[in-house]
Amino acid sequence: MRTGAEGPRRGRGRPAGGGDRAALILDAARQEFAAQGYDKASLRGIARAAGVDPALVHHYFDGKEELFVAAMQLPFNPAEVLPALFADADGPDEVAERMVRFILSIWRDADTRAPFLALLRSATGSETGAAMMRSFVAQALIARVAEHLPPAPDRELRLNLAVAHVIGVMLLRFVVQVEPIASADEEDVIGRMLPAISAYFRGA
Amino acid sequence: MRTGAEGPRRGRGRPAGGGDRAALILDAARQEFAAQGYDKASLRGIARAAGVDPALVHHYFDGKEELFVAAMQLPFNPAEVLPALFADADGPDEVAERMVRFILSIWRDADTRAPFLALLRSATGSETGAAMMRSFVAQALIARVAEHLPPAPDRELRLNLAVAHVIGVMLLRFVVQVEPIASADEEDVIGRMLPAISAYFRGA
Repeated sequence: MRTGAEGPRRGRGRPAGGGDRAALILDAARQEFAAQGYDKASLRGIARAAGVDPALVHHYFDGKEELFVAAMQLPFNPAEVLPALFADADGPDEVAERMVRFILSIWRDADTRAPFLALLRSATGSETGAAMMRSFVAQALIARVAEHLPPAPDRELRLNLAVAHVIGVMLLRFVVQVEPIASADEEDVIGRMLPAISAYFRGA
Repeated sequence: MRTGAEGPRRGRGRPAGGGDRAALILDAARQEFAAQGYDKASLRGIARAAGVDPALVHHYFDGKEELFVAAMQLPFNPAEVLPALFADADGPDEVAERMVRFILSIWRDADTRAPFLALLRSATGSETGAAMMRSFVAQALIARVAEHLPPAPDRELRLNLAVAHVIGVMLLRFVVQVEPIASADEEDVIGRMLPAISAYFRGA
């Protein structure tokens, strides 16, 4: 599978102008995602806005999620990283701990946090921003965590609550910077929130 | 104690021009809070920006928190509502449930949610916005909940985690509108999150 990183890299190996066209597509994608939200934006519409053939979009980016990851400058592609992260996890408790540690590792660093903070900011600012974050949370994150948990009618609602908890902690620790959670030791924060997250992952 | 509602009401009973001066003060307060954050903004600085005597600010508003509540158009004054809300609560579980139900009742309604969403938006947008939300969360909410829980060295950190969880749920349910939590029955959401919130309120 092609990654967001490989797309541009292969672009550089192509005839002169390939990089420019990839950049044109990324600019168009950012505008289309911001204007339409993730679900309504289409590769065809983005190609049209960039003034290129849809086949060229497919040549650089392996589908809409990879294009979104590249356009939003996300520091990883959830389609690759999350399945690998949870692959050999031994039950809900371990899936919970890996998710919490992974999200904290992304938010801990101002550079990798920035695109997610931008997503959160646009979600609080407009309905299309909210739609963009909604798609990301539901499809990129929650759907992939759900695959590693036993099916249950209330599984998605429990995962929504768990992810809400983790996002709230990222918000208070790194953005609002309320004390003492802003300065608390990371292992202390993880150890205190894991029981709640694990309980949501296990269900009743 | 004077309330945010009484301030303007008394203003209307005063000589012509009183309402205008209260409005001038509120405009200046909004600008000062946005530019300086809550902690750094002062009644004296707000009076200066409004071009009025500091005594007039004190005449209309009973201190900085009441002025903040009026300027941000918050639907209630935490200094009055929260002590009454928790006054006769019987232990940490009941304090937890009252807080969760109160916050949900505020966010459920788009009108009463709006000023808090504005606070959240400005927190994700700038450091002074973050400072404003930080003061509100720490002083208006967490400090007042803490008064009704047994003292413990980790009490504030546990309250930070509980409030983070609740804010995350408000964000996913009402702003990002992820399903199924956006459409879930309110009692179902409360019932599922209360064990986690109560555990944080009780401590180990």
